[in-house]
Amino acid sequence: MPHLRKDPEKRLWVIAAPQRNRRPRPKTLIANKLDPSAPCPLCPGNEDKTPPEITAFRDRGTEPNSPGWSVRVVPNAYPALKVEEETIAGPEGLYDIMGGVGAHEIVIETPEHDTTLGERSLEQVTEILEALRERTADLKQDRRFEQVILFKNRGAMAGASLYHPHFQLMALPVVPKDIDDELSAAKSYFDYRGRCVYCDVINQETKQGERIVFRDTGAVSFCPYASRFAFECRVMPREHSSRFEDAGPDLLRSVAGALRETLRKLDIALERPDLNLVIHTLPFNSDMENQYHWHIEIMPWTEQAGGLEKGTGMFINPVLPEEAARHLRSL
Amino acid sequence: MPHLRKDPEKRLWVIAAPQRNRRPRPKTLIANKLDPSAPCPLCPGNEDKTPPEITAFRDRGTEPNSPGWSVRVVPNAYPALKVEEETIAGPEGLYDIMGGVGAHEIVIETPEHDTTLGERSLEQVTEILEALRERTADLKQDRRFEQVILFKNRGAMAGASLYHPHFQLMALPVVPKDIDDELSAAKSYFDYRGRCVYCDVINQETKQGERIVFRDTGAVSFCPYASRFAFECRVMPREHSSRFEDAGPDLLRSVAGALRETLRKLDIALERPDLNLVIHTLPFNSDMENQYHWHIEIMPWTEQAGGLEKGTGMFINPVLPEEAARHLRSL
Repeated sequence: MPHLRKDPEKRLWVIAAPQRNRRPRPKTLIANKLDPSAPCPLCPGNEDKTPPEITAFRDRGTEPNSPGWSVRVVPNAYPALKVEEETIAGPEGLYDIMGGVGAHEIVIETPEHDTTLGERSLEQVTEILEALRERTADLKQDRRFEQVILFKNRGAMAGASLYHPHFQLMALPVVPKDIDDELSAAKSYFDYRGRCVYCDVINQETKQGERIVFRDTGAVSFCPYASRFAFECRVMPREHSSRFEDAGPDLLRSVAGALRETLRKLDIALERPDLNLVIHTLPFNSDMENQYHWHIEIMPWTEQAGGLEKGTGMFINPVLPEEAARHLRSL
Repeated sequence: MPHLRKDPEKRLWVIAAPQRNRRPRPKTLIANKLDPSAPCPLCPGNEDKTPPEITAFRDRGTEPNSPGWSVRVVPNAYPALKVEEETIAGPEGLYDIMGGVGAHEIVIETPEHDTTLGERSLEQVTEILEALRERTADLKQDRRFEQVILFKNRGAMAGASLYHPHFQLMALPVVPKDIDDELSAAKSYFDYRGRCVYCDVINQETKQGERIVFRDTGAVSFCPYASRFAFECRVMPREHSSRFEDAGPDLLRSVAGALRETLRKLDIALERPDLNLVIHTLPFNSDMENQYHWHIEIMPWTEQAGGLEKGTGMFINPVLPEEAARHLRSL
């Protein structure tokens, strides 16, 4: 059964998910590519190949689990965590263990099998963000969850096993390490300067301009100053906003526009790269509304991580963010 | 020019190394494999294909930069950091920047092109650790360095671009994030319990036995309780020892034995997997000798990381460490 484990040397919660070993491996990873022509459980007409849908945006009069949807949310067939598990944490000698309570869902972005997020219309991208937002707000009602993580793996090198465009959603009973680190950095900054660090970064970036990829009145995207990866991008609402699940329709539309434009540019610059994308939002039980600012991190795959990155958390980036942003702006 | 950058949201030093863009990419990554028959700059007879050697263990009477060596250390031809850079740190608006001072070396483990560490003799593995130790002790004399990281990328999926067995060494002007996190965890534990957390883990693991891979009187290897990766292994000296560079010949030989045996078992279990290996040792300027314990982390590559891992630092491991260890013990 899935559960979470923590040891005292790294104090990192890890999901132990032995049931995931039954999950089919991407057989085409051997060629570094998913096969677009493989049978697809996420395509319209194959609704019976997934667990029954949780929700969907669909045409009036169409039945659940049948075609006629534009966005469709289903449970992951090989979930890393399960809603029906217990959440009780306890010691195991020196270690800590916790029941594998959580949710693991697939958000199918579109009925179209072979498009990227950057190629779709603003309405479609906005609708996807709205589906993600609704699921987050819904899962927030389960008091056992601390955080919902929304992410996307595109391509075999980014860890995907399905070609059809989709997001994944995981509700977790703990706050992941990187979010926790951001909270503690945001707190230090706020204690010292009295302002949200993300708002200050947005101000400095829009003023300087050299790392900006796209901006309008509602949202901004840029290559971060200390980019860990070549062509790393960050998309943020310009107004202070800590919780993704509270975003109104206008804000979502702005962010969708910046996200779409950034991905469109990355698709051209890096020829539809494999990539990971993750939404960072304030954990449900945190009161750091003034300090934290939700945002989207985009990490194109350009090379394999080595022992330095995996073994120490230190990154080497061969492309200056100023050069990446200049190139992306020109597209 | 290489330099280091930090932003206030993640407080993570990143090496910006635009000069690395000239580095040849592994052209065979397209097949997920390095080509063992590609021309090799690390083989004996090709000594002129690398920068001049820094040091080597070699037969009496042989000349530097000629055959006759058993271990050979050369500068990385595409260094991420450079010894002659300035180390001065300063602000850049909200951000921090630091000169890219450091060292980046290649430790060629053996003249043999096609062997793994687990296939070599105990004497050979001990000699490699001794070479790494000597280089670390030497670089420690440069007061600009905070830490030396010794790591190994084996195979294309682990980020290697050369097939010939080698370690990399990086001397850094900062302490990498993951080491810093371990120091802070070790400090908390020591403050609370008055003992080294690693010593306590070793005691619990050797008593329980179920995650042990190999042990003798001097060293132990086990699959950590909260393993992040399938078949992750950790090798440690059993006696408390904080600094790798201070390890004596007996201790090195013990650790070499445990390392060799662990890698031999992994080679069988996972069919010579691509893998990363890193040595964690106390930063030069830290006084936490009582709290920290040097160790080796082994991370076999079995699948690509996705957005959850890369975007939040949360890991999903489909193989229980108890099962991995049981299998490894049987080999």
